[in-house]
Amino acid sequence: MRKLIAVARGEEKADLVLKNANIINVFTNEIIKGDVAIDEGYIVGIGVYEGKEEIDLEGKYLSPSFIDGHVHIESSMVTPNQFAKAIVPRGVTTIIADPHEIANVKGIEGIRYMLEESENLPLDVYIMLPSCVPSTPFENAGAVLEAEDLEKLIDEARVLGLGEMMNYPGVVNQDQKVLNKLQVFKDKIIDGHGPVISDKELNAYVVAGIKTEHECSTIEEMNERLRLGMYIHIREGSAARNLKDLIKGVNKDNLRRCIYCTDDKHPGDLLKDGSIDHNIRLAMEAGIDPIDCIKMASLNAAEAYGLKEKGAIAPGFKADLVVIDNLKDFNIIKVFKDGKLVAEDNKPLFDVTVRDNASMKNTVNIKEISIEDFQVPIKGERVNVIKLLPHSLITEHVVKSVEDLVVEDGLFVKGDNLLKVAVIERHKRTGNIGLALVEDFGLQNGAIASTVAHDSHNLIVIGDNDEDMLMAVKELERVGGGLTIVYEGKILDTLPLSIAGLMSEEPLEVVDKKLTNMLDIAYERLGVNKNIDPFMTLSFIALPVIPDIKITDMGLFHVGQFKFIDLVE
Amino acid sequence: MRKLIAVARGEEKADLVLKNANIINVFTNEIIKGDVAIDEGYIVGIGVYEGKEEIDLEGKYLSPSFIDGHVHIESSMVTPNQFAKAIVPRGVTTIIADPHEIANVKGIEGIRYMLEESENLPLDVYIMLPSCVPSTPFENAGAVLEAEDLEKLIDEARVLGLGEMMNYPGVVNQDQKVLNKLQVFKDKIIDGHGPVISDKELNAYVVAGIKTEHECSTIEEMNERLRLGMYIHIREGSAARNLKDLIKGVNKDNLRRCIYCTDDKHPGDLLKDGSIDHNIRLAMEAGIDPIDCIKMASLNAAEAYGLKEKGAIAPGFKADLVVIDNLKDFNIIKVFKDGKLVAEDNKPLFDVTVRDNASMKNTVNIKEISIEDFQVPIKGERVNVIKLLPHSLITEHVVKSVEDLVVEDGLFVKGDNLLKVAVIERHKRTGNIGLALVEDFGLQNGAIASTVAHDSHNLIVIGDNDEDMLMAVKELERVGGGLTIVYEGKILDTLPLSIAGLMSEEPLEVVDKKLTNMLDIAYERLGVNKNIDPFMTLSFIALPVIPDIKITDMGLFHVGQFKFIDLVE
Repeated sequence: MRKLIAVARGEEKADLVLKNANIINVFTNEIIKGDVAIDEGYIVGIGVYEGKEEIDLEGKYLSPSFIDGHVHIESSMVTPNQFAKAIVPRGVTTIIADPHEIANVKGIEGIRYMLEESENLPLDVYIMLPSCVPSTPFENAGAVLEAEDLEKLIDEARVLGLGEMMNYPGVVNQDQKVLNKLQVFKDKIIDGHGPVISDKELNAYVVAGIKTEHECSTIEEMNERLRLGMYIHIREGSAARNLKDLIKGVNKDNLRRCIYCTDDKHPGDLLKDGSIDHNIRLAMEAGIDPIDCIKMASLNAAEAYGLKEKGAIAPGFKADLVVIDNLKDFNIIKVFKDGKLVAEDNKPLFDVTVRDNASMKNTVNIKEISIEDFQVPIKGERVNVIKLLPHSLITEHVVKSVEDLVVEDGLFVKGDNLLKVAVIERHKRTGNIGLALVEDFGLQNGAIASTVAHDSHNLIVIGDNDEDMLMAVKELERVGGGLTIVYEGKILDTLPLSIAGLMSEEPLEVVDKKLTNMLDIAYERLGVNKNIDPFMTLSFIALPVIPDIKITDMGLFHVGQFKFIDLVE
Repeated sequence: MRKLIAVARGEEKADLVLKNANIINVFTNEIIKGDVAIDEGYIVGIGVYEGKEEIDLEGKYLSPSFIDGHVHIESSMVTPNQFAKAIVPRGVTTIIADPHEIANVKGIEGIRYMLEESENLPLDVYIMLPSCVPSTPFENAGAVLEAEDLEKLIDEARVLGLGEMMNYPGVVNQDQKVLNKLQVFKDKIIDGHGPVISDKELNAYVVAGIKTEHECSTIEEMNERLRLGMYIHIREGSAARNLKDLIKGVNKDNLRRCIYCTDDKHPGDLLKDGSIDHNIRLAMEAGIDPIDCIKMASLNAAEAYGLKEKGAIAPGFKADLVVIDNLKDFNIIKVFKDGKLVAEDNKPLFDVTVRDNASMKNTVNIKEISIEDFQVPIKGERVNVIKLLPHSLITEHVVKSVEDLVVEDGLFVKGDNLLKVAVIERHKRTGNIGLALVEDFGLQNGAIASTVAHDSHNLIVIGDNDEDMLMAVKELERVGGGLTIVYEGKILDTLPLSIAGLMSEEPLEVVDKKLTNMLDIAYERLGVNKNIDPFMTLSFIALPVIPDIKITDMGLFHVGQFKFIDLVE
């Protein structure tokens, strides 16, 4: 402290001085011309300073770096350190991550891996402990996390609280196991995930200690929650893009509880649009005061998560800074973390440690499987079918007559634009397999399989013949999880996701290139319906919380009726 | 928690429902019509609710109650519980108190007394531990508090941090004892008191961890500090009234770090104008959005001091509420604390426990004193005189020729409009007495004495004859401290301040009445100059931090020259 005071006072030279900046002040919405003195990783003074090292910013804008208020790193399909290399150059140096996906595969051990893998990065990775593993009682995940399990990690330095409480019925219905979790984390931050609920239910959700919401899709939802004191994450991800709708409801009075998040962002979108820098650009385009756009990405998020040394350019704050060309194009030129230059012109200037991630590998543990396991007996009059809708995660429940199907030996063979889908429990070799029929996926002469299948991340495979489906399953078993495409008895391509079947150890660019190639194959060779993304569709078709009809390892689930239904009845 | 959720959901009736309110929402600056459901002292729901008890507010305004961000209770001259009875009806249910005065008399024991005396009140009294006891090395107080002394109280539930760090030269000059204190409290809140300093000195002060400032008197001072991330207390007290100047600098962008305080407010002003409700009214009169005026008194102050359950009307917040007639007259009709009605129509509805405060009594410990102790030998050519200025705490240093004085036997007898003043160390019987001459006090044939003498609170007495001065000292010794007026050998009136010589155990109204009467006596019988307040003048004439020339128990101190000077030279 003595040294910092001496440097601030000008008695000693600073480690680094950023000269001639247009400094963005999020406390007063002013642009201040001056130098920023940095020492021991902290901002120590603003004014006119001399440094051992000096960088002339020549009038460029200096902003506090950005915070992603809610993100699942796993959705990027790369490990935390590769993720850092991708987003730090975008000006994001702090994220609030919910390792919900890996926790569904590897439980507490998976969360610890994410903590360790994100150590010593120029990205501060804070962790919200996954509150809902498994997400529902209607599926088998790799772990079951109760309050007492989560409590083991509560004192970890980078653990801020409890991750998105998706089980809002459990909260408002006072489910004891849910209340136990809320009780354990009552003095920490508890993230919400309670779209749709309103009025008394929402009051109940908030009084239970839920502090944030990132699932708002309308201004009405946002306003109702802001009024009750919640922080609202304005989300711009890959599947869910809420910014353009919500930003219209942001004003000078309610701004301070508005922050940003990406939630789930896929490799291609991260590379093309960036991370939270994209949210800022979109908010600016929508006409919000540029400094307010930055404030939501910095001070507001820091306050929401109690990060006292982050989010502003002022003495005592961490020297986490972004140099920007101007407040219109908003190109990110340099990024500083703890006073060190860590990215320049969209390139990371740091390397990451390659670790032995053996404990997170070989997570595809399925019971011996054979062609017979894919047989769908047709005994009855009608079949319940999962109908896909264009560009949507919502499915439609349709009922077909058995007479419209081709049936041999009492077994399903084919139907008009129908494919077989199987969800195979892959964590504990239970042998559980859920089977269903899907309409409008549009694949021919092959199969596509994935171990990314929210939220339990069982192995899901879709195809028009059992042989290719089996081959796809065997391929993912061989590589320890990932995505694969089989066509006419041959494996055309595979993206191994060796970390928990969710993440690659390769850089984001490599994963994106492979994924793009596989999408081309899926559309061009297998003829997948171009109105859907085959991998995203597979990854959500097993999530029994989004309407209307889903398939888990336990069977066909009707979300609206909140119960399992028979495939044939 | 289960119960609160059930009540919020409407499954169970709330303890209390405030029906038909115009609810002030500080998150969105909206007025929401509806009911507020309260249970177990918390707000649980906003909407339409039923309660075991219901109060129809008939469209009146419901506001979160108010927070005084920085106050010395001792300045009210009453104990914390009497103070509560005075300010709770004004809508103030939380205060951040700095028991700096009693700490100067009784040290850690005095702070503990304030904590105990403020238990179980419908006023939440948080404590900032006094950082500067004694205030300067140029006086003897009743205690010396170092970092290790303060650390003993750091874990007390209501201790939030370190009180106003007046020793800003010590901070910027890196005085080790000062740094030790800052270090101990670095993860808590540290209040500032650093007017005047600017630029690099201010950066140094802020990087040292100082988070707030209540001494701003100009918009420039305020803006410079807001830019550096400090919280600014907009003060409206008795001696210092900064609101009208500062409020002009408040806008929607910088508002969130602006809060209010009273700092020092005397009995008459508290009774006439109120407390923080007065700051709100003045801010409204200045044209600030009424909800912003309330936000500074509630949410902003709660955020500044990390009081997570205070400052807003939303589920999970404490039911600390104020019912107001309208946002113009701003009359306070009812006050709720933890969901209980505690004041109505400016009257408290609670009683306070009368304790045995023996440990805080009999604090006037002076060495045997006699008439000779007041003798001022005149050996030299010139005398240095403290000249009072009208309506000001600042004094002027004037030099008089010895020839203009009446001197007998080498001792001062009288001079044109000059009086003798003595500061007698009263804590540890050291026998220290500082003597000086004061111009323009204007008293005749008597003496006035007080044990309220910032910040060391030694016994100060002024008079035109040694006999009356001695009598006044003896009277305060007899009653254990307070204020007294002696005239022509008779005690005309005494206000005993039995708690540390600073506070009365009587209600504020009683103290005010007595004080008003004594002021009348001072002006009408003793002929005190009507351009000064005799008691306030005495209480500040011994404070060696305000220019230009002061008297402590150690002698005559020249603030500008920062050294003791001789009375005669």
